[in-house]
Amino acid sequence: MPSSKASPVLRVKVADHGVPENFAMIAHTEYLTLNTKKRYEIVDITEHVERARANAGLRDGFVLVSAMHITASVFVNDHESGLWRDIMTWLEQLAPAKPEYEHHATGEDNADAHLKRMLLGHQVLVPVTDAKLDLGPWERIHYGEFDGRRPKRVMLKALGI
Amino acid sequence: MPSSKASPVLRVKVADHGVPENFAMIAHTEYLTLNTKKRYEIVDITEHVERARANAGLRDGFVLVSAMHITASVFVNDHESGLWRDIMTWLEQLAPAKPEYEHHATGEDNADAHLKRMLLGHQVLVPVTDAKLDLGPWERIHYGEFDGRRPKRVMLKALGI
Amino acid sequence: MPSSKASPVLRVKVADHGVPENFAMIAHTEYLTLNTKKRYEIVDITEHVERARANAGLRDGFVLVSAMHITASVFVNDHESGLWRDIMTWLEQLAPAKPEYEHHATGEDNADAHLKRMLLGHQVLVPVTDAKLDLGPWERIHYGEFDGRRPKRVMLKALGI
Repeated sequence: MPSSKASPVLRVKVADHGVPENFAMIAHTEYLTLNTKKRYEIVDITEHVERARANAGLRDGFVLVSAMHITASVFVNDHESGLWRDIMTWLEQLAPAKPEYEHHATGEDNADAHLKRMLLGHQVLVPVTDAKLDLGPWERIHYGEFDGRRPKRVMLKALGI
Repeated sequence: MPSSKASPVLRVKVADHGVPENFAMIAHTEYLTLNTKKRYEIVDITEHVERARANAGLRDGFVLVSAMHITASVFVNDHESGLWRDIMTWLEQLAPAKPEYEHHATGEDNADAHLKRMLLGHQVLVPVTDAKLDLGPWERIHYGEFDGRRPKRVMLKALGI
Repeated sequence: MPSSKASPVLRVKVADHGVPENFAMIAHTEYLTLNTKKRYEIVDITEHVERARANAGLRDGFVLVSAMHITASVFVNDHESGLWRDIMTWLEQLAPAKPEYEHHATGEDNADAHLKRMLLGHQVLVPVTDAKLDLGPWERIHYGEFDGRRPKRVMLKALGI
């Protein structure tokens, strides 16, 4: 049962390095193109996000990572192949591939991919602190493809200082 | 089955136009008020987001689009009426309207709307590049209403340069 | 049924106070550590987000609130204990705790928590306007714990002016 009594916040740590006098604001954009071999596939793209951060010279701020195709996801979770299979099995249970979607009247066959994209979400905002991706110990950035085998884009946009 | 072997990233394109010398940082806020005729309805609000971007004069950065009421969603997907009906049918399967929610002890009857909001998500961050919404070919910004027929607000906040 | 005819947008309000001449850009980071007494628990952390905003001196922009552990969520919804129980019951239906996950071959027993985190989402971007969290009337920021009883962190990063 959830409870609102007695906030369980143990402690707060402030890591505030301030904004230097002569800072330049950074807005930097890259596009990844991915082409998975399988229709359904999960890909760890953390290294690409870090490279975009380095290319931008970003020390503090955010990198938006956003799937530009409406049948793909971006999410943050564990890099563990058993969990990846669990995620794919679970998505198929909650948003199954089947013929009976109204979207298929348009000639498409991928309505399930549209729904799977929304279950996992299509974008994450990756915080950057001290010139590093500020992720938790097991957090990795993943691309979830649900209608692959063709080139699709992911946007990486860095904003900050 | 997911796979982590051999990253399928084909190529990276860097679209970095730099920050001009005399830039002014932009923080601009608008509020849309929507009043749908039906209790459950999907509305394409992309044109309103683009108008807010233009009002802000934003050339690079983000526009946050966030539903301020806890029974509504904002999501990015295809503008296709068959898919919209699929989404509504699917939401009803996963988070059905029914009397037996504990939330209804407060006198409310819309617990399903709270859950549907969380399934689709309540906000998106729309990237802006070269003074345009930087969306994929089929990405459109939608408002999902699950307890309509009264005025409800969506925040549009532009941040960047 | 969803409909795209006749946009139901009633009105638009622009609340644009501009950026002052001598503004300083703000990038400020805090980390909350939470340790819930129960394995599954919902905690309202709105006051902590507001305190981070005040510590940052942020007048306009965003505060990112992001769960740094992959078995926890951050979401915005109503502060109502009946609804919180409904959310937990619903999550258990859609992503049940059970032995048969492949992730458990690693020795873990919390695959359901990974899935629950993704259903509710792991981060929100809280808008700040006029030196206040710019939330709707019932919007409160919640931490959702699905594998608690140990210290876990939430990042609060303020960006703006």
